[in-house]
Amino acid sequence: MPRPYNLPMGYYQRHVFFCLNSREDGSACCACHNAAEMQQHAKARIKALGLNGEGRIRINKSGCLDRCSEGPCVVVYPEGVWYTYVDEHDIDEIVDRHLVKGEVVERLRI
Amino acid sequence: MPRPYNLPMGYYQRHVFFCLNSREDGSACCACHNAAEMQQHAKARIKALGLNGEGRIRINKSGCLDRCSEGPCVVVYPEGVWYTYVDEHDIDEIVDRHLVKGEVVERLRI
Repeated sequence: MPRPYNLPMGYYQRHVFFCLNSREDGSACCACHNAAEMQQHAKARIKALGLNGEGRIRINKSGCLDRCSEGPCVVVYPEGVWYTYVDEHDIDEIVDRHLVKGEVVERLRI
Repeated sequence: MPRPYNLPMGYYQRHVFFCLNSREDGSACCACHNAAEMQQHAKARIKALGLNGEGRIRINKSGCLDRCSEGPCVVVYPEGVWYTYVDEHDIDEIVDRHLVKGEVVERLRI
Protein backbone atom coordinates (compact mmCIF):
# COMPACT_ATOMS: atom_id res chain seq x y z
CA MET A 1 0.00 0.00 0.00
CA PRO A 2 2.03 2.98 -1.21
CA ARG A 3 1.89 6.15 0.83
CA PRO A 4 0.94 9.12 -1.39
CA TYR A 5 2.88 12.33 -1.84
CA ASN A 6 5.66 11.38 0.58
CA LEU A 7 3.46 12.39 3.48
CA PRO A 8 4.72 11.48 6.93
CA MET A 9 2.98 8.37 8.25
CA GLY A 10 -0.32 9.25 9.88
CA TYR A 11 -2.22 7.39 12.58
CA TYR A 12 -4.12 5.78 9.73
CA GLN A 13 -2.53 5.15 6.38
CA ARG A 14 -5.84 5.94 4.72
CA HIS A 15 -8.85 7.44 6.44
CA VAL A 16 -12.13 7.24 4.59
CA PHE A 17 -15.25 9.23 5.43
CA PHE A 18 -18.70 8.23 4.20
CA CYS A 19 -21.27 10.99 4.38
CA LEU A 20 -24.32 9.52 6.12
CA ASN A 21 -26.25 12.75 6.31
CA SER A 22 -30.02 12.60 6.10
CA ARG A 23 -32.18 15.52 5.00
CA GLU A 24 -35.81 15.69 5.98
CA ASP A 25 -36.87 18.22 3.36
CA GLY A 26 -36.70 15.89 0.36
CA SER A 27 -33.55 17.48 -1.13
CA ALA A 28 -30.56 15.40 -2.23
CA CYS A 29 -28.80 13.61 0.62
CA CYS A 30 -26.38 10.73 0.97
CA ALA A 31 -28.55 8.76 3.40
CA CYS A 32 -31.17 8.42 0.63
CA HIS A 33 -28.59 6.45 -1.38
CA ASN A 34 -27.91 3.58 0.99
CA ALA A 35 -24.86 5.33 2.43
CA ALA A 36 -25.05 3.61 5.82
CA GLU A 37 -25.17 0.17 4.24
CA MET A 38 -22.31 1.00 1.87
CA GLN A 39 -20.16 2.29 4.74
CA GLN A 40 -20.74 -0.96 6.63
CA HIS A 41 -19.91 -2.94 3.51
CA ALA A 42 -16.59 -1.10 3.08
CA LYS A 43 -15.76 -1.47 6.78
CA ALA A 44 -16.47 -5.20 6.72
CA ARG A 45 -14.38 -5.68 3.57
CA ILE A 46 -11.40 -3.86 5.05
CA LYS A 47 -11.70 -5.94 8.22
CA ALA A 48 -11.94 -9.16 6.20
CA LEU A 49 -8.72 -8.15 4.44
CA GLY A 50 -7.05 -7.59 7.83
CA LEU A 51 -6.38 -3.96 6.91
CA ASN A 52 -8.26 -2.17 9.69
CA GLY A 53 -6.65 -0.47 12.66
CA GLU A 54 -3.80 1.86 13.55
CA GLY A 55 -1.26 2.29 10.77
CA ARG A 56 -3.69 0.82 8.27
CA ILE A 57 -7.18 1.85 7.08
CA ARG A 58 -10.17 3.35 8.89
CA ILE A 59 -13.64 3.46 7.35
CA ASN A 60 -15.52 6.23 9.11
CA LYS A 61 -19.02 7.61 9.32
CA SER A 62 -19.31 11.34 8.90
CA GLY A 63 -21.83 14.13 8.99
CA CYS A 64 -22.66 16.18 5.91
CA LEU A 65 -19.61 16.65 3.66
CA ASP A 66 -21.49 19.45 1.86
CA ARG A 67 -21.33 18.04 -1.65
CA CYS A 68 -24.94 16.87 -1.51
CA SER A 69 -25.85 17.39 -5.15
CA GLU A 70 -22.90 15.21 -6.25
CA GLY A 71 -23.57 12.48 -3.70
CA PRO A 72 -23.67 9.96 -2.32
CA CYS A 73 -20.09 10.86 -1.58
CA VAL A 74 -17.03 9.60 0.20
CA VAL A 75 -13.59 11.15 0.64
CA VAL A 76 -10.25 9.38 1.07
CA TYR A 77 -7.53 11.14 3.08
CA PRO A 78 -4.72 12.08 3.10
CA GLU A 79 -5.06 12.16 -0.69
CA GLY A 80 -8.29 14.15 -0.61
CA VAL A 81 -9.78 12.09 -3.43
CA TRP A 82 -13.58 12.20 -3.61
CA TYR A 83 -15.85 9.51 -5.01
CA THR A 84 -19.46 8.80 -5.63
CA TYR A 85 -20.91 5.30 -5.89
CA VAL A 86 -24.05 3.44 -6.86
CA ASP A 87 -23.75 0.05 -5.20
CA GLU A 88 -21.41 -2.36 -3.47
CA HIS A 89 -19.59 -3.15 -6.70
CA ASP A 90 -18.41 0.47 -6.78
CA ILE A 91 -17.43 0.27 -3.12
CA ASP A 92 -15.46 -2.91 -3.77
CA GLU A 93 -13.57 -1.20 -6.59
CA ILE A 94 -12.70 1.77 -4.38
CA VAL A 95 -11.53 -0.60 -1.64
CA ASP A 96 -9.58 -2.99 -3.82
CA ARG A 97 -7.97 -0.46 -6.13
CA HIS A 98 -7.59 2.74 -4.14
CA LEU A 99 -7.45 1.71 -0.50
CA VAL A 100 -5.40 -1.43 -1.01
CA LYS A 101 -3.30 -0.59 -4.08
CA GLY A 102 -3.23 3.22 -4.01
CA GLU A 103 -4.71 3.64 -7.51
CA VAL A 104 -7.29 6.37 -8.06
CA VAL A 105 -10.54 5.05 -9.55
CA GLU A 106 -11.14 7.77 -12.10
CA ARG A 107 -14.56 6.61 -13.27
CA LEU A 108 -16.09 7.18 -9.81
CA ARG A 109 -14.31 10.40 -9.02
CA ILE A 110 -16.20 13.61 -8.36
CA MET B 1 -2.99 29.63 4.41
CA PRO B 2 -0.06 27.52 3.18
CA ARG B 3 -0.87 24.17 1.59
CA PRO B 4 1.12 21.39 3.27
CA TYR B 5 3.42 18.91 1.59
CA ASN B 6 2.86 20.26 -1.93
CA LEU B 7 -0.37 18.31 -2.13
CA PRO B 8 -2.59 19.06 -5.10
CA MET B 9 -5.44 21.36 -4.11
CA GLY B 10 -8.35 19.42 -2.68
CA TYR B 11 -12.02 20.31 -2.61
CA TYR B 12 -11.32 21.71 0.84
CA GLN B 13 -7.98 23.20 1.75
CA ARG B 14 -8.35 21.77 5.23
CA HIS B 15 -10.98 19.29 6.31
CA VAL B 16 -11.46 18.83 10.03
CA PHE B 17 -13.33 15.96 11.67
CA PHE B 18 -14.60 16.12 15.22
CA CYS B 19 -15.44 12.77 16.75
CA LEU B 20 -18.93 13.10 18.25
CA ASN B 21 -19.29 9.46 19.20
CA SER B 22 -21.28 8.60 22.27
CA ARG B 23 -20.86 5.39 24.24
CA GLU B 24 -23.63 4.09 26.47
CA ASP B 25 -21.51 1.73 28.53
CA GLY B 26 -19.71 4.42 30.55
CA SER B 27 -16.35 3.98 28.80
CA ALA B 28 -14.37 6.94 27.43
CA CYS B 29 -16.06 8.73 24.55
CA CYS B 30 -15.75 12.08 22.85
CA ALA B 31 -19.41 13.04 23.31
CA CYS B 32 -18.83 13.01 27.09
CA HIS B 33 -16.36 15.87 26.60
CA ASN B 34 -18.60 18.46 25.00
CA ALA B 35 -17.51 17.44 21.52
CA ALA B 36 -20.73 18.57 19.80
CA GLU B 37 -20.51 22.03 21.34
CA MET B 38 -16.81 22.34 20.46
CA GLN B 39 -17.49 21.32 16.84
CA GLN B 40 -20.18 23.98 16.59
CA HIS B 41 -17.82 26.52 18.12
CA ALA B 42 -15.10 25.75 15.56
CA LYS B 43 -17.60 25.82 12.69
CA ALA B 44 -18.99 29.19 13.78
CA ARG B 45 -15.49 30.64 14.15
CA ILE B 46 -14.45 29.54 10.67
CA LYS B 47 -17.64 30.99 9.25
CA ALA B 48 -17.10 34.27 11.11
CA LEU B 49 -13.64 34.43 9.57
CA GLY B 50 -15.16 33.90 6.11
CA LEU B 51 -13.08 30.74 5.65
CA ASN B 52 -15.82 28.16 5.16
CA GLY B 53 -16.76 26.57 1.85
CA GLU B 54 -15.17 25.01 -1.21
CA GLY B 55 -11.46 25.68 -1.54
CA ARG B 56 -11.30 26.74 2.09
CA ILE B 57 -12.07 24.99 5.37
CA ARG B 58 -14.76 22.48 6.38
CA ILE B 59 -15.48 21.64 10.02
CA ASN B 60 -17.18 18.25 10.03
CA LYS B 61 -18.94 15.94 12.44
CA SER B 62 -17.75 12.37 12.41
CA GLY B 63 -18.48 9.02 13.93
CA CYS B 64 -15.99 7.25 16.18
CA LEU B 65 -12.40 7.94 15.13
CA ASP B 66 -11.29 5.00 17.31
CA ARG B 67 -8.86 6.87 19.53
CA CYS B 68 -11.33 6.97 22.41
CA SER B 69 -8.87 6.73 25.28
CA GLU B 70 -6.95 9.75 23.99
CA GLY B 71 -10.06 11.82 23.30
CA PRO B 72 -11.88 14.00 22.87
CA CYS B 73 -10.18 14.03 19.50
CA VAL B 74 -10.17 15.83 16.21
CA VAL B 75 -8.15 15.25 13.05
CA VAL B 76 -7.08 17.77 10.44
CA TYR B 77 -6.62 16.57 6.85
CA PRO B 78 -4.78 16.44 4.52
CA GLU B 79 -2.01 16.81 7.10
CA GLY B 80 -3.35 14.01 9.29
CA VAL B 81 -2.57 15.95 12.47
CA TRP B 82 -4.54 14.82 15.52
CA TYR B 83 -5.47 16.95 18.51
CA THR B 84 -7.24 16.71 21.79
CA TYR B 85 -8.82 19.68 23.56
CA VAL B 86 -10.33 20.73 26.83
CA ASP B 87 -12.38 23.80 26.07
CA GLU B 88 -13.08 26.51 23.51
CA HIS B 89 -9.75 28.21 24.18
CA ASP B 90 -8.03 25.11 22.82
CA ILE B 91 -10.37 25.06 19.83
CA ASP B 92 -9.62 28.72 19.13
CA GLU B 93 -5.91 27.99 19.16
CA ILE B 94 -6.31 25.09 16.72
CA VAL B 95 -8.43 27.29 14.44
CA ASP B 96 -6.27 30.40 14.60
CA ARG B 97 -2.89 28.75 14.42
CA HIS B 98 -3.33 25.54 12.47
CA LEU B 99 -6.37 26.06 10.26
CA VAL B 100 -5.67 29.68 9.42
CA LYS B 101 -1.86 29.86 9.57
CA GLY B 102 -0.83 26.27 8.95
CA GLU B 103 1.16 25.93 12.19
CA VAL B 104 0.87 22.69 14.15
CA VAL B 105 -0.19 23.26 17.77
CA GLU B 106 2.21 20.87 19.43
CA ARG B 107 0.87 21.20 22.98
CA LEU B 108 -2.53 19.75 21.95
CA ARG B 109 -1.24 17.07 19.65
CA ILE B 110 -1.96 13.41 20.28
